[in-house]
Amino acid sequence: MLMSELAARTGVPIPTVKFYLREGVLMPGEATSATRARYDETHVQRVALIKALSGLGLSMAQIRAIVTLIDEPGRPLLDTLATATALLPPAVDPGEPAEYPRARAALTALGLAVPDDYPAVAQLEHALAAAEAAGMPMTEDRLRAYGPAVLAIAEYDIAEMPLDSASRAIEYAVLGTALYEPVIAALRRVSHAELSARRLAPRPDGHTG
Amino acid sequence: MLMSELAARTGVPIPTVKFYLREGVLMPGEATSATRARYDETHVQRVALIKALSGLGLSMAQIRAIVTLIDEPGRPLLDTLATATALLPPAVDPGEPAEYPRARAALTALGLAVPDDYPAVAQLEHALAAAEAAGMPMTEDRLRAYGPAVLAIAEYDIAEMPLDSASRAIEYAVLGTALYEPVIAALRRVSHAELSARRLAPRPDGHTG
Repeated sequence: MLMSELAARTGVPIPTVKFYLREGVLMPGEATSATRARYDETHVQRVALIKALSGLGLSMAQIRAIVTLIDEPGRPLLDTLATATALLPPAVDPGEPAEYPRARAALTALGLAVPDDYPAVAQLEHALAAAEAAGMPMTEDRLRAYGPAVLAIAEYDIAEMPLDSASRAIEYAVLGTALYEPVIAALRRVSHAELSARRLAPRPDGHTG
Repeated sequence: MLMSELAARTGVPIPTVKFYLREGVLMPGEATSATRARYDETHVQRVALIKALSGLGLSMAQIRAIVTLIDEPGRPLLDTLATATALLPPAVDPGEPAEYPRARAALTALGLAVPDDYPAVAQLEHALAAAEAAGMPMTEDRLRAYGPAVLAIAEYDIAEMPLDSASRAIEYAVLGTALYEPVIAALRRVSHAELSARRLAPRPDGHTG
């Protein structure tokens, strides 16, 4: 397809497609003349990926780092998956102390053996510290309710990860992590709406709750 | 306690405490002289709330709207809970079309009767549309895996909501919604790390997965 069709298919304006090419995040098409090139489905998919990551607030440098890992997944896949997903927001402040007492306690309680240098551990520590500072610390009880539920979600995610090529696995991990966090958050909020309506509904005896 | 102690207790600098007072989000202390006032635990809790909401990127106007609902919960509690949590990010673009086909289908599949004007429905539609645009649409299968897990989390949340006062219920809903979204996201990411390590670990027969 021509660039105009690539633009139409992805809903991304031609100048933006050209910008992606210049930034090196979109691979060049197959040149058919001095000024024309042909694009295919891999370009459609890549533009969709760039658009999605860009919509999540990632910079061109961060997107370039991710697509480089997808295009050249050299190291063991597990390391590359960790590196790629670590590029997703929220950024972990490298100046933060590398001690994660709250995250460590939660991981132990859940039976997870994730090492401290995995960026999501710092993220978890940060999120738990924020809840604690606001007077709503994670309790053992809450962790027992959340832990198995989140694990069930993650089990589905990882079982579905395509392993036929490293590139596809990385793309799946990056998009699946980033795009489904807002879905899960929104599903939780609609569930809250439904369940508080049920809990606050007047009962025959005149009481609520 | 004096303002200096309030500042020390909450880790918020005195000029910021004064700013909160001027902005009307922190209630005044009990005046003990022309220039001094006494603060108590309700002030400590309020400063922690403001700090938490501010850390989530809410503007002073949004924080003021939330604390006004906490201080004067006039309407039926269920409406006030919806209004207060709707003030949390992500903001829903009011110019967006008010049709939610993807969210509606998901809610029906999960047996949730949340009305369309509930802001989390627009949020869910937006998140599902983004996943679809990136080539990773929500499947029935994924929804069947995520739905019960998210409902289990929400059931815990709503069962724990304090109903002894409307103010406490609203504060709990706002903080519990906002502060635990990043916790859940981080727990999912550490679970991914654990489960992909297990899935990619070499098996005795020499295969992975």
